[in-house]
Amino acid sequence: MRFRTEQRLDDDVAERGFTLGDIPGTLWTPGSATAPVPLILLGHPGGLDRMYPRLLARARSAVAQGYAAATIELPGAGDRPRSPAADQARADLRRVLAAGEPVDDGIVDRLVLPLVDAAVPEWQALLDALPALPGIGGPVGYSGGVISIGVRLGVVEPRITAALLYAGSFVPRAIVDQARRFTIPVQVLLQWDDEWNDRQMALDLFDALGSGEKTLHANMGGHTGVPAFEADEANRFFARHLR
Amino acid sequence: MRFRTEQRLDDDVAERGFTLGDIPGTLWTPGSATAPVPLILLGHPGGLDRMYPRLLARARSAVAQGYAAATIELPGAGDRPRSPAADQARADLRRVLAAGEPVDDGIVDRLVLPLVDAAVPEWQALLDALPALPGIGGPVGYSGGVISIGVRLGVVEPRITAALLYAGSFVPRAIVDQARRFTIPVQVLLQWDDEWNDRQMALDLFDALGSGEKTLHANMGGHTGVPAFEADEANRFFARHLR
Repeated sequence: MRFRTEQRLDDDVAERGFTLGDIPGTLWTPGSATAPVPLILLGHPGGLDRMYPRLLARARSAVAQGYAAATIELPGAGDRPRSPAADQARADLRRVLAAGEPVDDGIVDRLVLPLVDAAVPEWQALLDALPALPGIGGPVGYSGGVISIGVRLGVVEPRITAALLYAGSFVPRAIVDQARRFTIPVQVLLQWDDEWNDRQMALDLFDALGSGEKTLHANMGGHTGVPAFEADEANRFFARHLR
Repeated sequence: MRFRTEQRLDDDVAERGFTLGDIPGTLWTPGSATAPVPLILLGHPGGLDRMYPRLLARARSAVAQGYAAATIELPGAGDRPRSPAADQARADLRRVLAAGEPVDDGIVDRLVLPLVDAAVPEWQALLDALPALPGIGGPVGYSGGVISIGVRLGVVEPRITAALLYAGSFVPRAIVDQARRFTIPVQVLLQWDDEWNDRQMALDLFDALGSGEKTLHANMGGHTGVPAFEADEANRFFARHLR
């Protein structure tokens, strides 16, 4: 991990850009470091530059609650090499959705499974690198992003203590099957009227999660209309599990 | 409305027992009255004496948040005259559930619809009587109890501003149909693994609610295992809508 940029934001948040191998990422920590703080990994749908305003808002909120926050670019997104197969699957999905046709499992598998397979080891590599830094220590949470990545990560990565998952993307059946081995505390956010998602599949995934403590928050407002109060709900979830 | 008993509890909560016609009820208000406070109606499954510890805990929480709280006995419950037809329907439902058989609509209709028809006008009579008291004023919330009563009340009673509903009982299809005319802000609590409920019917009811702002909180823990943190979630829901 090599740090490339560093700046102090106005509310005493230190923001550092880094590369992990050839993967760009960003780390936010309390500007006035005291004892080591727990870490929250910030998931996203890909495209760090495009997502920056929302990621920064979530990172500021995390730091204000006493955590560090970190994220890395997804495979095939932002400035990373594209995946022609994923681009084709994404185009197919958009065409099917625009035509109002049913989404078949094949498209979802082609789009999501290679992404999960490529991304999860990268987030694990981030976890290898980050806790070695001064100022970061304790439990690790995962928040948001492509839900299939969050599920796989929660299954294979014992360093993650709790996960806040956003059920806002199509889920391969292989991930639903794998969810039975997901056992950490989890809160799942679902937009009930999400125009770009399959509600029943999201409910099937929630049902399949093997966690003894699992909570579903469903709201109205469409794919991009998550109510503002869910930011506080996220903070309270992590406060229960990362302290 | 005639007040029968009055006591000051140790945390400055005034508790008054009353009768409304021949219906027993309880009112909890801040002991040190200041400006009029909003009212939360506390729903329950019937049996005020049996439910008293849980109702008192909810009432204390409401008063601590700056509300008054009130409840009345349900028709056919507690010391009120039994309904032989409802008792028969309840016995039929228990037998079917114990045998692991599917619950047919007829049993649910016989058990719930007469209860809703009888109870809703009584809660409306409570609303006629209570806001005339000094110390109570402003918006009214409804919380908990038999969800079909809460839905009907939210549809027919414009004085209710927001409702927190507990999806913990079987729902007649007629109530699901009526739910489309339910438009106030609502938060629905569902125990995902409720052994005494039909999860799909609860989800159908949530889907049918016509509210622009509706939130579902689903948790694990079985019928009686609602997590303690949902008490705070209820407070925050009412703080958003009764202030």
